[in-house]
Amino acid sequence: MQDLDHVSIMKPITKFAATVPHTRRIPEIISMAFREAYNGWPGPSFLEIPRDVLDAKVDLDKVRFPEKYRSPYKVYGDPKAIELATSWFQQAERPAVLAGSQVQFCRGAEALAHFAERARVPIYVNDAARGALPPTHPNLFVNSRRQALGQADVIMIIGAPFDFRLGYGQRLNPQAKVIQVDLDDGALGHNRDVALGICGDAAAILTQLTDAVSSQSSQSSDWLRALREVEEKSASPATAGLNSDQVPIHPLRLCKEINDFLTEDTIFIGDGGDIVTMSASLIRTHKPGHWLDPGPLGTLGIGVPFAIAAKTALPDKDISVLFGDGAFSLTGFDIDTAVRFGLPFVSMVGNNAGWNQIRFGQLSKYGEKRGDVANKLIPTRYDVIVEAMGGYGELVTQPQDIRPPMERARVSGKPSCVNVILDPDIYRSGTMNQTMYK
Amino acid sequence: MQDLDHVSIMKPITKFAATVPHTRRIPEIISMAFREAYNGWPGPSFLEIPRDVLDAKVDLDKVRFPEKYRSPYKVYGDPKAIELATSWFQQAERPAVLAGSQVQFCRGAEALAHFAERARVPIYVNDAARGALPPTHPNLFVNSRRQALGQADVIMIIGAPFDFRLGYGQRLNPQAKVIQVDLDDGALGHNRDVALGICGDAAAILTQLTDAVSSQSSQSSDWLRALREVEEKSASPATAGLNSDQVPIHPLRLCKEINDFLTEDTIFIGDGGDIVTMSASLIRTHKPGHWLDPGPLGTLGIGVPFAIAAKTALPDKDISVLFGDGAFSLTGFDIDTAVRFGLPFVSMVGNNAGWNQIRFGQLSKYGEKRGDVANKLIPTRYDVIVEAMGGYGELVTQPQDIRPPMERARVSGKPSCVNVILDPDIYRSGTMNQTMYK
Amino acid sequence: MQDLDHVSIMKPITKFAATVPHTRRIPEIISMAFREAYNGWPGPSFLEIPRDVLDAKVDLDKVRFPEKYRSPYKVYGDPKAIELATSWFQQAERPAVLAGSQVQFCRGAEALAHFAERARVPIYVNDAARGALPPTHPNLFVNSRRQALGQADVIMIIGAPFDFRLGYGQRLNPQAKVIQVDLDDGALGHNRDVALGICGDAAAILTQLTDAVSSQSSQSSDWLRALREVEEKSASPATAGLNSDQVPIHPLRLCKEINDFLTEDTIFIGDGGDIVTMSASLIRTHKPGHWLDPGPLGTLGIGVPFAIAAKTALPDKDISVLFGDGAFSLTGFDIDTAVRFGLPFVSMVGNNAGWNQIRFGQLSKYGEKRGDVANKLIPTRYDVIVEAMGGYGELVTQPQDIRPPMERARVSGKPSCVNVILDPDIYRSGTMNQTMYK
Amino acid sequence: MQDLDHVSIMKPITKFAATVPHTRRIPEIISMAFREAYNGWPGPSFLEIPRDVLDAKVDLDKVRFPEKYRSPYKVYGDPKAIELATSWFQQAERPAVLAGSQVQFCRGAEALAHFAERARVPIYVNDAARGALPPTHPNLFVNSRRQALGQADVIMIIGAPFDFRLGYGQRLNPQAKVIQVDLDDGALGHNRDVALGICGDAAAILTQLTDAVSSQSSQSSDWLRALREVEEKSASPATAGLNSDQVPIHPLRLCKEINDFLTEDTIFIGDGGDIVTMSASLIRTHKPGHWLDPGPLGTLGIGVPFAIAAKTALPDKDISVLFGDGAFSLTGFDIDTAVRFGLPFVSMVGNNAGWNQIRFGQLSKYGEKRGDVANKLIPTRYDVIVEAMGGYGELVTQPQDIRPPMERARVSGKPSCVNVILDPDIYRSGTMNQTMYK
Repeated sequence: MQDLDHVSIMKPITKFAATVPHTRRIPEIISMAFREAYNGWPGPSFLEIPRDVLDAKVDLDKVRFPEKYRSPYKVYGDPKAIELATSWFQQAERPAVLAGSQVQFCRGAEALAHFAERARVPIYVNDAARGALPPTHPNLFVNSRRQALGQADVIMIIGAPFDFRLGYGQRLNPQAKVIQVDLDDGALGHNRDVALGICGDAAAILTQLTDAVSSQSSQSSDWLRALREVEEKSASPATAGLNSDQVPIHPLRLCKEINDFLTEDTIFIGDGGDIVTMSASLIRTHKPGHWLDPGPLGTLGIGVPFAIAAKTALPDKDISVLFGDGAFSLTGFDIDTAVRFGLPFVSMVGNNAGWNQIRFGQLSKYGEKRGDVANKLIPTRYDVIVEAMGGYGELVTQPQDIRPPMERARVSGKPSCVNVILDPDIYRSGTMNQTMYK
Repeated sequence: MQDLDHVSIMKPITKFAATVPHTRRIPEIISMAFREAYNGWPGPSFLEIPRDVLDAKVDLDKVRFPEKYRSPYKVYGDPKAIELATSWFQQAERPAVLAGSQVQFCRGAEALAHFAERARVPIYVNDAARGALPPTHPNLFVNSRRQALGQADVIMIIGAPFDFRLGYGQRLNPQAKVIQVDLDDGALGHNRDVALGICGDAAAILTQLTDAVSSQSSQSSDWLRALREVEEKSASPATAGLNSDQVPIHPLRLCKEINDFLTEDTIFIGDGGDIVTMSASLIRTHKPGHWLDPGPLGTLGIGVPFAIAAKTALPDKDISVLFGDGAFSLTGFDIDTAVRFGLPFVSMVGNNAGWNQIRFGQLSKYGEKRGDVANKLIPTRYDVIVEAMGGYGELVTQPQDIRPPMERARVSGKPSCVNVILDPDIYRSGTMNQTMYK
Repeated sequence: MQDLDHVSIMKPITKFAATVPHTRRIPEIISMAFREAYNGWPGPSFLEIPRDVLDAKVDLDKVRFPEKYRSPYKVYGDPKAIELATSWFQQAERPAVLAGSQVQFCRGAEALAHFAERARVPIYVNDAARGALPPTHPNLFVNSRRQALGQADVIMIIGAPFDFRLGYGQRLNPQAKVIQVDLDDGALGHNRDVALGICGDAAAILTQLTDAVSSQSSQSSDWLRALREVEEKSASPATAGLNSDQVPIHPLRLCKEINDFLTEDTIFIGDGGDIVTMSASLIRTHKPGHWLDPGPLGTLGIGVPFAIAAKTALPDKDISVLFGDGAFSLTGFDIDTAVRFGLPFVSMVGNNAGWNQIRFGQLSKYGEKRGDVANKLIPTRYDVIVEAMGGYGELVTQPQDIRPPMERARVSGKPSCVNVILDPDIYRSGTMNQTMYK
Repeated sequence: MQDLDHVSIMKPITKFAATVPHTRRIPEIISMAFREAYNGWPGPSFLEIPRDVLDAKVDLDKVRFPEKYRSPYKVYGDPKAIELATSWFQQAERPAVLAGSQVQFCRGAEALAHFAERARVPIYVNDAARGALPPTHPNLFVNSRRQALGQADVIMIIGAPFDFRLGYGQRLNPQAKVIQVDLDDGALGHNRDVALGICGDAAAILTQLTDAVSSQSSQSSDWLRALREVEEKSASPATAGLNSDQVPIHPLRLCKEINDFLTEDTIFIGDGGDIVTMSASLIRTHKPGHWLDPGPLGTLGIGVPFAIAAKTALPDKDISVLFGDGAFSLTGFDIDTAVRFGLPFVSMVGNNAGWNQIRFGQLSKYGEKRGDVANKLIPTRYDVIVEAMGGYGELVTQPQDIRPPMERARVSGKPSCVNVILDPDIYRSGTMNQTMYK
């Protein structure tokens, strides 16, 4: 329609992109697009159907309508590799497992829990794997990750890339035996040597490992206890922020209120920079696949589209979104769409009238004068805007007033916006160091 | 930053796209990006500067800072081709000229006026060439285009492609001698044979032609008179709509009010489908380069970004934007940015709560049942939203109330939104036929 | 070096193509290139190292030298899918298996033999799987493929695409249960619905199936016997050509002589159109991976480069290449390279002074007058040319003289060319019908 | 045919690459391919016509057959720029002009001669502009280029890029007024600032300049005389090589013999590295467009295809090709094609059994031990090979024997090969320094 080369534009960000050249091939090429979308790591496909192809008439008898055009089965790990991994886990004194997105994409939460319990290993999750284990699971650890990965003797990275969040693999104990599990052969050993790479579906391989590990063998009890202590200690420093009554509101206080507000069935979506990073260590979702965020170095603005998609796919779920105000300004206007389609969810905007993750990084690098550029916003009344669209909105300026508007928003049955004015001078320390770029 | 292959994504929609590989080459590659942006038909360049390249320090003495890195001069047409074109114009009884975007991009408005006057030819403009001649110029014609191009004996298409708006060249009189002028050799003869193709800058070639045409020679007086009559007759059928007092408001009435509202110095931006198509035959801008729209088969949503760009580049100009409500819903949220940067302009939303150009095309092709899908909106209070952002807003439902809010918006000194509720059942006939796709 | 965008040129024909941006990253990016080359279906990677990157000096201590950067393990099939396939094979009365290139690329020849014997299924091979079973293996069938695939009740296609050689899947019995095994999820169900798709390594899955199939269960004895009869009958019509003493020599006679000439350890390479197609049903290699050809719709000219590569990698093997004269004219000149590097092999050129596969297709479609264009060659003395390069050459015009020159070529210890003048008017029937394009 | 994405492969090395989507569009898209090939700087277009599109039948009445689909006219320079350049030339005391390929591609040889004579400027040519002026033209200079460009006060670079041959523009006198003329706006100021950039056709602009320059004005007589002296002195050092009787033959002696052998109507093609570089300062072609070589950092192997193309296009011309033996080994086999099509030309192979340009560069950089890798060949009897193809061949080992075989080859009426054994230890000094990469 727009006389552009859409396919070339979309190719770098899709798993399959094509133009349908003839009307009779529409079903066939749609089947290809779906097959590729689900092939291995899931991702989007793109089809362009030119107007003349869309409008032409064809004899339906000459059209192939694919039916069994993709396989529902999983790829399993090599038994020899499973055996080796098993022997390492059985001899490990300080094992650790980091589970990433693929555990969720492969629907491996249950298998992860079984493996953790049988092998008695501490589990750390990131990305879409958040919520794979419930917050109370004894093998789930959060705040001791640095210690665990730095001291473990056997480490399994399952379905997570060696990207900046793992220091490109450099944060792992150099003496550890590192096992990497990935759907893509091409990820195995990327950025870091691995002692053992296993290609296959995360859920399948966790099941294979669980079956192979004998329950008696673990020697990891001391190690688990030590990590739990680290975990408990690390929680305390943040307490001040969590319970702060300061005005403007402390961002950690907002996070705490949101965590309390989530139900067992809430899908939580985080869309922002600093505020989402802060929320990540505080907010616990309760079920697999109930945490959505922009991903590593991700594109802000996913909040409203993710909420619309989630509510459409799973209408019985409660949907809550935490936005930074910068992020909300990108796609918040699409709440208009949610209103028209009757898709209620609760938006909470952590409004500090600035792009803090950018701002404090720039200030630190370039100084006050050259650094304070293009990073401030204004405390826009997003609540009023959402009301004008036909949604529900409230403004919050006092910490004790956070919870009731969220509750009213939830019961309003409308897309909503609780606009919470935050202290603009509080930011996460990593932000200033911009550790993500190192 | 987003760990994407930005350059591949941008390549199909830019004139130059590159990654800067080393800090010391930043100025050099920026100069290349600018040179290519201005080379021939102007367009965007894209540069990606990776974070490590951006942050590295280099010895400034080893960096080349290009200064005279592009040429300000124009390319002229071949004198032999100019001579031939001139002889045709001098013998023509029914000449016609269609001037397109390149006349504006080459800054050729004055040259166009001189040529029209000297050669006594009727001028039709489209795209960015609108306003190249003032509305009152005796050689400017609007509503007789079909007749002129269908009956002329010599036709010059200057800086406009043979695209759907010209029936891919098939709407021109098959017996006419067709002259095509374009900056790009590759456009000459594309989609249609041309008797004479001249490659070069539109302004340069118009000047060459004006110099070559002797003033006595034209035999076109009768032809000009005949076209003027067609012009006057064609205006009348629309009069009913223009002056209609119906409620909901007739879209042509809104267009008329806007046309009256424009000053000599207003830059008018149209962002929408049906409403912008309707406005195109009614609204006259007064100076070259004062009409901006999405272009052929263009991307809706350009209204706010164009307004921000225009007001930033030319702060003394009055900026008025006519939006369809569909188009406004795409980027209207960015008025937030205009508020922060203090960039006032008047937005008028022609709000019919629907995507009419899509809707009536679908209804016509697929019928009521299957066609009325995904094409209705709601009459959102965009005026309230803009007020909530810190701008100025008013709602209009009566035809006689259109003008005063526009005036108040103009003097408010803020980005503004006059939200005008229109009759959703009135649409342009071409819309139903979807002639643009034929 | 050539100031071209090599990476863009190579991307469509490689599995990985990149420019190394910095000297210190050379080892890392080489490791990526190797990992991707071996990841899944093997294929080439391409690296461009710019001259300045190649020449710069770096501190070796700051360079990462990847060591354990790829996984040697295989991906296994889903046990549930294996179970289902097994039950189908056990109940099958007329099973059939077509094994394609992946069986060789996954080193699955031995697993294929075990499976064939245990499950008592007839095996057909194509592409690089030729020779996976020795010519005398009781489960190997060749000339009954059409009947087998058309009448079987369970068909497993393993590591072979549904391309033109299988009529895009349309040549399989529509009532059969079709099992498809492939390394790439994206191939499962492509061009044809499949009842069961199993993603994984061909060798791994054949082993899983062999382990699962109980030896008693097969009901396929009658079916195997019937196919063997078809096989024997189909051999006879060709006998005339095989034993023909006509002059010019019959191409099938050449093929027969070559088949007799091959040893257990000969790697046979076919490079041509019609002659290679004819040879495919006659020539049997004895070991896995000992048959190389251009592949489906493949690029002619692979003969010399494949011979050079094979002799370099496996210097103890005997290498014999059958060329069409058209194919030899493409890369025969590179025998010069083989001479310099001391890499002996026997080239046999089936010289009919024409591009027969093209020629008879054109004649059939366009007639004598318009079709006999650009498809004739001359009977060039390729044997003399190879001698001039420092190799060994002989010319053959009589059928009884074919074998001795081949023997002399083999013992010459040089790259050699036995130039055999063939009857230009004999071609394969499929050639005229150009069935490959249907 | 080969089931590849040909268009993506060809795009980076063509001016237009496309797949024809429908049979009825074949003529139209062929016209686009031709228009783009000739648009601006000429270059190749690529069309892929899929087999089914090629074979389908269409109603000829519905097919558009473009006739006047491209413009034969040139683009002229801006008169204001011409005026400025003219004034500089008239005031120049030490002007210099370097003419590159575009002068030939724009058919500007005659215009160049007129301009040189009128403006009394020294002309240097490179690339395809060699031969634009006859060897005896008083304004043509060759060996004083470095002095001229280093000392001139006004320099015009016309139709030649600022690439490594001009030190990326750094070899020009920094105080000079530099004028650059190019068909492509994007080349103006690329790699080096220019005082005046003029976009347009080289022939057109030279004509404009000639018309504008008054004949009396030049002050350049002393300068021309000084350069002629430099020229004469610089010739002498090479004399020893030119007349050397050493065995093996000195490469410069071969070049001298070839230069003597060329006729007024010989098209000379150079295909090689070191030998072609040496020949470039000795061999003079006599007419425009009669010199062909691989271009800067060009792809070796163009000798035979260029010869076939030249003889096909201009059958009355004498064609002589000088090959390095490395270059001949790339495409010499295609002399087979020239034999079949009856296209005679004289090939002279300067056979030093090595890749000297690579070899001595490597030796200099990496030393004897690590540098002498993959750069030696053997003195193959290319003459015998060409005879075996049906051409004419002779071997030459003595300097006094060079000429007669070339004469016999010329009168043989066949594609021919005079294989001249050269001294492998003589190379051009720049080769060792690899100045081309700096």
